[in-house]
Amino acid sequence: MDKLHLTSHNAIAANVQKIAALWPHCVAERIGPDGRPQLAVDFDKLRAELADNLIDQGEERYQFTWPDKRAAARRANTPTTMTLRPCRNESVDFDTTRNLYVEGDNLEVLKALRETYMGRVKMIYIDPPYNTGNDFVYRDHFAQTRTAFEQSSGLFDAEGNQTLDPMVRNQESNGRFHTDWLNMIYPRLRVARDLLSDDGVIFISIDEKEVNNLQKVCNEIFGEVNFVSQLVWSGGRKNDSKYISVSHEFVLCYVRNIALLKEKKVVWREKKQGLTDIYATYDNLKAKYKEDTESIQRELRQWYRNLPDGHPAKDHRHYSRVDSKGIYFASDISWPGGGGPKYNVLHPTTGKPVAIPSRGWITSKANMEQWIKQDRVDFGLDETYVPTLKAYLKERETSVPYSVFYKDGRASSKRLAALMGDKLFENPKDEEIIQRMIEFCGVEDGDIVLDFFSGSGTTAHSVMLAAVNKGIAPRFILVQWPEEISIKSCSSEKSRKVAMAAIKLCDELSVPHNICEIGKERIRRAGAKIKAESPLTTADLDVGFRVLKLDSSNMQDVFRSPDAIGADDLFAMVDNVKPDRTAEDLLFQTLLSLGVELSARIEAETLHGHRVLWADGTFVAACFDDGLTEEVVAAIARRQPAYFVMRDSSAHSDTLLDNFEQLFRHYSPTTLCRVI
Amino acid sequence: MDKLHLTSHNAIAANVQKIAALWPHCVAERIGPDGRPQLAVDFDKLRAELADNLIDQGEERYQFTWPDKRAAARRANTPTTMTLRPCRNESVDFDTTRNLYVEGDNLEVLKALRETYMGRVKMIYIDPPYNTGNDFVYRDHFAQTRTAFEQSSGLFDAEGNQTLDPMVRNQESNGRFHTDWLNMIYPRLRVARDLLSDDGVIFISIDEKEVNNLQKVCNEIFGEVNFVSQLVWSGGRKNDSKYISVSHEFVLCYVRNIALLKEKKVVWREKKQGLTDIYATYDNLKAKYKEDTESIQRELRQWYRNLPDGHPAKDHRHYSRVDSKGIYFASDISWPGGGGPKYNVLHPTTGKPVAIPSRGWITSKANMEQWIKQDRVDFGLDETYVPTLKAYLKERETSVPYSVFYKDGRASSKRLAALMGDKLFENPKDEEIIQRMIEFCGVEDGDIVLDFFSGSGTTAHSVMLAAVNKGIAPRFILVQWPEEISIKSCSSEKSRKVAMAAIKLCDELSVPHNICEIGKERIRRAGAKIKAESPLTTADLDVGFRVLKLDSSNMQDVFRSPDAIGADDLFAMVDNVKPDRTAEDLLFQTLLSLGVELSARIEAETLHGHRVLWADGTFVAACFDDGLTEEVVAAIARRQPAYFVMRDSSAHSDTLLDNFEQLFRHYSPTTLCRVI
Repeated sequence: MDKLHLTSHNAIAANVQKIAALWPHCVAERIGPDGRPQLAVDFDKLRAELADNLIDQGEERYQFTWPDKRAAARRANTPTTMTLRPCRNESVDFDTTRNLYVEGDNLEVLKALRETYMGRVKMIYIDPPYNTGNDFVYRDHFAQTRTAFEQSSGLFDAEGNQTLDPMVRNQESNGRFHTDWLNMIYPRLRVARDLLSDDGVIFISIDEKEVNNLQKVCNEIFGEVNFVSQLVWSGGRKNDSKYISVSHEFVLCYVRNIALLKEKKVVWREKKQGLTDIYATYDNLKAKYKEDTESIQRELRQWYRNLPDGHPAKDHRHYSRVDSKGIYFASDISWPGGGGPKYNVLHPTTGKPVAIPSRGWITSKANMEQWIKQDRVDFGLDETYVPTLKAYLKERETSVPYSVFYKDGRASSKRLAALMGDKLFENPKDEEIIQRMIEFCGVEDGDIVLDFFSGSGTTAHSVMLAAVNKGIAPRFILVQWPEEISIKSCSSEKSRKVAMAAIKLCDELSVPHNICEIGKERIRRAGAKIKAESPLTTADLDVGFRVLKLDSSNMQDVFRSPDAIGADDLFAMVDNVKPDRTAEDLLFQTLLSLGVELSARIEAETLHGHRVLWADGTFVAACFDDGLTEEVVAAIARRQPAYFVMRDSSAHSDTLLDNFEQLFRHYSPTTLCRVI
Repeated sequence: MDKLHLTSHNAIAANVQKIAALWPHCVAERIGPDGRPQLAVDFDKLRAELADNLIDQGEERYQFTWPDKRAAARRANTPTTMTLRPCRNESVDFDTTRNLYVEGDNLEVLKALRETYMGRVKMIYIDPPYNTGNDFVYRDHFAQTRTAFEQSSGLFDAEGNQTLDPMVRNQESNGRFHTDWLNMIYPRLRVARDLLSDDGVIFISIDEKEVNNLQKVCNEIFGEVNFVSQLVWSGGRKNDSKYISVSHEFVLCYVRNIALLKEKKVVWREKKQGLTDIYATYDNLKAKYKEDTESIQRELRQWYRNLPDGHPAKDHRHYSRVDSKGIYFASDISWPGGGGPKYNVLHPTTGKPVAIPSRGWITSKANMEQWIKQDRVDFGLDETYVPTLKAYLKERETSVPYSVFYKDGRASSKRLAALMGDKLFENPKDEEIIQRMIEFCGVEDGDIVLDFFSGSGTTAHSVMLAAVNKGIAPRFILVQWPEEISIKSCSSEKSRKVAMAAIKLCDELSVPHNICEIGKERIRRAGAKIKAESPLTTADLDVGFRVLKLDSSNMQDVFRSPDAIGADDLFAMVDNVKPDRTAEDLLFQTLLSLGVELSARIEAETLHGHRVLWADGTFVAACFDDGLTEEVVAAIARRQPAYFVMRDSSAHSDTLLDNFEQLFRHYSPTTLCRVI
């Protein structure tokens, strides 16, 4: 039986493979630093392949660099030995939900997820620290103390060292102000890119302090050609500035592969903004004037005129005509560009042929007659007028999304405070805007929406709302570092108040004082509220989430990659699993290694006295009990799983192990058997 | 008599002087490439001064570079030999105006202006090419053919070569897409910075294509610490996008020296937006309800509530109370932070002492009594309520400017088309927004507002409007390259139409087909319109402008800097002035050399048969006639000018020249005499 690989995806090895596929002669075997053979790139040969198109050392080139950029890039590529442990009691609908809530440092979490979710995430939204130089109670706090980090979960990074100063607030006077932030964001985005599907899209909230550096980094990681827009999220109102009151922030938007979107002729559309206002006005006018469409039309136009600049309904003021079927605009009835068919169309009242547009009609005579019957053609007073085509608002409710989102930030802040019973976040994101992003970038049912700086959990809320309001039911994966909530680090009275309210809620819930607890509670409450408000349409709505926590490997030998354990060691280590790890822990590590989604359905059953775990139907069968018998293995094999996984310590002898393999060869020859 | 220096400011020599002032031992004399002694920096010694704080070659550092960046920086520092020639017949109010309109390549123009205007410009607004990769009929066209450039004005740059490809549209497929643009913008901004006053500010319009590179460049040139905001100018509406309809652009804002602004406690304020709407609503309600302030108040609140998000009036909805004196809001009457005086205040109707705020009153008892008499204190129904202070909207009409400018771009486009009789510009800037910038950044009467990518002349229009609407009367300097308007280079039907309309106007005006002619005509019409609309308040409004055109030096020996002409050469060259240059041309070159503003008042008079020009009162006297006599020189000297300038060929002999000097020593020993 083969050993299961338990480290995460090794991106460097994958890169070497990519070179080998293109230029096999540029890759050669050599003995690596660990004394074992490995593939390595012969850079001189590669250089020769690229001949004159190389940039020489020291040559001026179009580039953006910062100290330790190379190290930050390496950090993205090194694998992690860490694993994700399920946490049933903190989850909601653990057995049925397809959503995930992952606690832990997001770089390590992303690496752990990389193998399984590579190319599978449709949309990423993140709200990373903005590097404001101020107090970061909730989100702007990416530097963690080594000790706090270790105390909370026994974690350390892949290189066993830390690069960010512990607990030092990143202030502008710090000589590494931008550098530290860049070294934080760069490797995370590098890994995130690997997770995006070919038609995937990433939205990143940021303000004017770092938008510039972030865009340079994104141009490098995602490719400038894949830049879509620097969106503006306008709404905050701050009055405390001496010069300019900055009332906006940005959302950088990149796609994974714009060439593919173009090839597939993808367009982004969303329901027009301001429709509710237009329809409400129309309904009022209809109630007032009944069938008097002329009066309705006159007042509707007046209403449009009185709208201020920037009102979303104002963009649709060409929808200013009204008939008994609703609001429409006079669309051109002539052939675009000219050369359309020319034939007589009779005016309905005068009975004479109407003026034919110089470019010809937009459609055939038969079709035109059909349209006239359906009252879709708007004739003028007499035949001297060229008619127009009625384009009803109800039939054209979508439009291309505009780049400026106007939203009063206080409204979403108030909604969240009402949901949580108090103001627990200083500047929460607006769930309605993220819902719009989900809608217009083409997320479909079952697609994954990832947020690895999830904070208050707004993205999960938006995903649930999208299911109710837009009829799109994606899944979410939220990642958040369990940052401690403390009033010690608050620099203002306002943030102290917010932190105290959050601590109070944690105490009421009897949970530790950390941001994940608040985030999870928000998702629970948001889900319950949505269900309560629309009980009929939300019967199938998935408001659950499976909680996973980043932790050190389940295996004892954490300082040594399990891959590196030679065959001789295998039976020397009778029990290589840490004593506090459960079968479910091992199962999830198995899923990560096999590339099975962590939201896979998990079922347990007892077969001949042994606890057998099934994941994703019969795709994975696992039994981590000691002393497995042929009886139970035969029962499993008969169900023909794609994978069977057991502990290496669970078979009494080598002979028994051979017998197990024999059983699979007999009942299910395609099953791949692995020991951990 | 000393020779007048006729080349522009040598920025490199000035930089050497700065080093010499700080570390004299790091600067030494040496024989330069021209065989003459010069000061040079000993870099090894300078390096030693900075010891360990040097970045080594090749070390990773926080930086942004592109090919030829070093050459672009050098281009900013090399002097120009070119000059500016006045053009009386194209000017408006040549003799009295203090505004300038300068035609020519803006880098050379900025260099020509550098010596005179260094540190004298309060505000710069520019709308440079956005590098859209599309057709640039009007503004997005910075690459000029060598030949067209030479044909039109015989110009060449200081190094005698060109760096941008001639007439090649800068497309994204071009490998130097960003590089060419950066090499264009970088030296211009470097020189522009020198012109800004210590309390000066620069606003740069740009869209999302280059905002990122521009900000990196500005952080380097102006200093990141002087970054104020990345403003959003929202208003354009484009529907032709597949993904996002980009309806905004940006305005980067930097100040010259934020430390100084902080030290001076400068704040930026402007008249609140939306006041007109609030007052109009109030006036309507007052007409409807007369003295019934309660009804006015109720309906005013309802009006605020119905305003959509983003409406500028909505920000002031706390001004929702009304009394007979107007609209006010209930301002806190307690001492901020606590510890205020506590004394009894009697309720006006119950006569009992009202509740005292826990933080104490905001003012003394005497003051409070004064306020109560003035009806500035808002009491509750009875003494159990803490009163509030009435803060009237009329008295608080200014606020900090918000970072998002909402303006429907179509409105300004229509206004300009109405002014010019046709649509001559595709996306003109909104003069009302630039007027707001002039207002809030603290421009004062007489300050200079510079725009060196002036295009349609919007900035001049804004300056004139500010005088009428805001009571601020700055001066303007507009610079524009006389780019030919041609339909050949138009890529779309829309831009062809616009170009054809512009050509038609040029023909009507009998002027060449170039953008400067349209810009000047716009300023003329805007000025006339403003005068016509407000004849009473605009009596003193300066709607004129002095036209200057960049040209080669007035001197014959253009390939040799006049500075380099030795004393021996002086009389060998009998007439060193080009035959087509006038006395006024020579006077303006003189003004540039002496650092006298080009808007200085110019007066001419005939003294003893010779034409004497006076600039800025009696500051500069110049006589460029041949055959000067002692009679005329004596007459000039008696007026005691600060400078006297004459041609070296105008004195009959060395003896006469000595006599002239003698006359000045006698009548006006402080006058500095110069020959050109």
